[in-house]
Order: sequence, then structure tokens, then C-alpha cells
Amino acid sequence: MGVTELIIVLALLQYLFFGMLVSRARTRYGVKAPAITGHPVFERYLRVQTNTLELLVIFLPALWIASAYIAPVWIGTLGTLYVAGRFIYLRGYVQAAEKRSLGFGLSALPILILLAIDLIGALRLLFAR
Amino acid sequence: MGVTELIIVLALLQYLFFGMLVSRARTRYGVKAPAITGHPVFERYLRVQTNTLELLVIFLPALWIASAYIAPVWIGTLGTLYVAGRFIYLRGYVQAAEKRSLGFGLSALPILILLAIDLIGALRLLFAR
Amino acid sequence: MGVTELIIVLALLQYLFFGMLVSRARTRYGVKAPAITGHPVFERYLRVQTNTLELLVIFLPALWIASAYIAPVWIGTLGTLYVAGRFIYLRGYVQAAEKRSLGFGLSALPILILLAIDLIGALRLLFAR
Repeated sequence: MGVTELIIVLALLQYLFFGMLVSRARTRYGVKAPAITGHPVFERYLRVQTNTLELLVIFLPALWIASAYIAPVWIGTLGTLYVAGRFIYLRGYVQAAEKRSLGFGLSALPILILLAIDLIGALRLLFAR
Repeated sequence: MGVTELIIVLALLQYLFFGMLVSRARTRYGVKAPAITGHPVFERYLRVQTNTLELLVIFLPALWIASAYIAPVWIGTLGTLYVAGRFIYLRGYVQAAEKRSLGFGLSALPILILLAIDLIGALRLLFAR
Repeated sequence: MGVTELIIVLALLQYLFFGMLVSRARTRYGVKAPAITGHPVFERYLRVQTNTLELLVIFLPALWIASAYIAPVWIGTLGTLYVAGRFIYLRGYVQAAEKRSLGFGLSALPILILLAIDLIGALRLLFAR
């Protein structure tokens, strides 16, 4: 192993970094806690963090389960695509809400593939014995 | 195994589906990103997704740990109750905020049972040796 | 083992408890669902829950992976610091938004340490063979 753990750590560090960007945007655009609205750029940073949380919660278990079924090179490829897609999502969404689709799609695609692998794997474990 | 993995995948697919409903409601009710308020029906869909995220983060590790202590048939039963409860929660909450209690309770109950199993299991591992 | 599982269960129960506080604050301060704003104290309770979710999603996998690399006593120490830090965060933030920093720092520190351990561990698995 090692690849799965590395991808997980990179995805967690990326998410932590997105949280730091929200914190910085909160200061920079004068949105005082506990408010979560008040400046459009802050709100876009917050949505990047929240949407990443929403995907991360699917990505991590899906990747972990899939690592029992597919080779590390595929785990690494799908994981890298997810992390890269999230950075593209960040860059696009912060520029304008309309520019969030590409990065979203690139990071959602590996999650859908992982879920399909997990589903096939679980069904084979259940029925193929 | 296989049962635990299958329940996890089903819960993740359900959560992904709830996210797609939020995305559709965003378009249908004209709530432009990054706004998260603006139409009561959209807000109810968003709360369904958010509340499911809040429970999912407890459900997944609680189920995973419990799978070392209880038989697959119980994992399957508790997991199915959670997923079914979440669909009832969705249907109720989207109709009216007051109708969200039944589904919430049905999906929270298996989580509480799983946490109790996990707690007993962890304490036995720590003290019973 | 047992220590890792116990810490995970305690962190999950704590998060569940924070969710119950939000639910109580919703009733007490008259913020009707699906609204998530409307009273500053309710909003601070909600932010405590949300921020705890944001950290929990990093903490749980980081702790789980680290449990393969470091002794249970360290898992217990870092885990206890996280849980204690979150209670201090709750107490501070509910009093005033400005008082949230200490608890945040105390619960973020063990997460950063765990991520560093995970990163070193994953890189050693990948390269040291």
C-alpha cells in the first residue's frame, strides 16, 4: 500500500488549505463570524470549501474500499484526478460562479468511477461465492 | 464481508443523489450560486443534503467499526433502516419542515445503536484482556 | 487496539451532542427550519457544529491511518486533545465569536500532527522499500 494513504493525506491537506482560504477571505472581505454571507467573493470561497467537504465525504470511503479491488496505479490516477479537479474547481469558482463546472466535473468523475468499482466489488463479494 | 461495503456504497450513492436534487432545485427555483438562500423549497432540499452529511459522517465510521463486532445481518438491517429513514426524511422535509421528524428519527436510531455497539466493543477491547 | 476506536466513538458522540445543542438553540431562539440565520446565539451554535464537522472529516481518517504508525498512548493523547479542544471551542464560541481561537487551535494542533505522521508514513511505505 502507501498510495491510498498518500492520496487520502493529500486530499485532507487540500481540504485544510481550502478552509484556510475561507478564513483569510473572512478577514479580507470583512465578514465577521458567525456570519456566512456578506461578500460575494467570501461566499464563493466558502462554497468551494463546503462543496469539497460534500465530495470528500464520498471520495474517502469510496477510495478506501476500491483500494481492495483495483491496483495502486489506478488508485493513484483516480485520486490525482480528484485532487487536480478540486484545484481547478477552486480557481474557476473564485473567478466566477459560472466557471465552476469544469473543476466540479473533473473531481466528480473519479468519485463516480470509484463508486461503480465499489458497487461491483461488494455485489461480487455477496453473490459470487 | 460485502454487506458493510454494500451499505456504505448505498449510503454514499443516496447522498450523491440528494446533492443532485439540491443542484436541480437551485436551477428550478432560480437560486443563483453562491447563494444558499432565496427560495423555501430550495432551502429545504439543501437542509436535507446538509443534515444527511451531518449524519453520514457519524454513520459511516460507526457502521465500519461495528462490523467487527456484530453479524452482517445486523449491519444490513441497521444500514437499511438508516438509508430508508433518510428517504422518508427527504420526502417529509421537502413537503414541509414540520414533517421531517419521523425520517430523522428512523435514520438517527440505527446510528445511536451502532455507537452503543462501538462504545461497548471498544471498552471491552481495552479492559477485558 | 481499542484506543483508536474509543477516540473515534468519543469524537462522534461529541459531534452528535453539538448537533443536539443546535437543535435546542433552534427552538430556544425561535429560528424556524429551514432557516440557518436569525439569531446570533443560534448562529454561533451552528458554526460550532459546522466547524466541528469540517475538522472531524479530517481528524477521523488522519487518526485511523496514524494508528498504524504510532503507539496507542499517542493516539489516545492526540485524540483526547482534539476532543478537549472542541469542548473549549464550544464554550468560547458560544460566549463570543472572538473567543473561539483557543479551542480551535487546541483541536487543530493534533490534526496537523496526525497529518504529518500520516504523510511521513505514506512516503516511507512508498519509497523505503
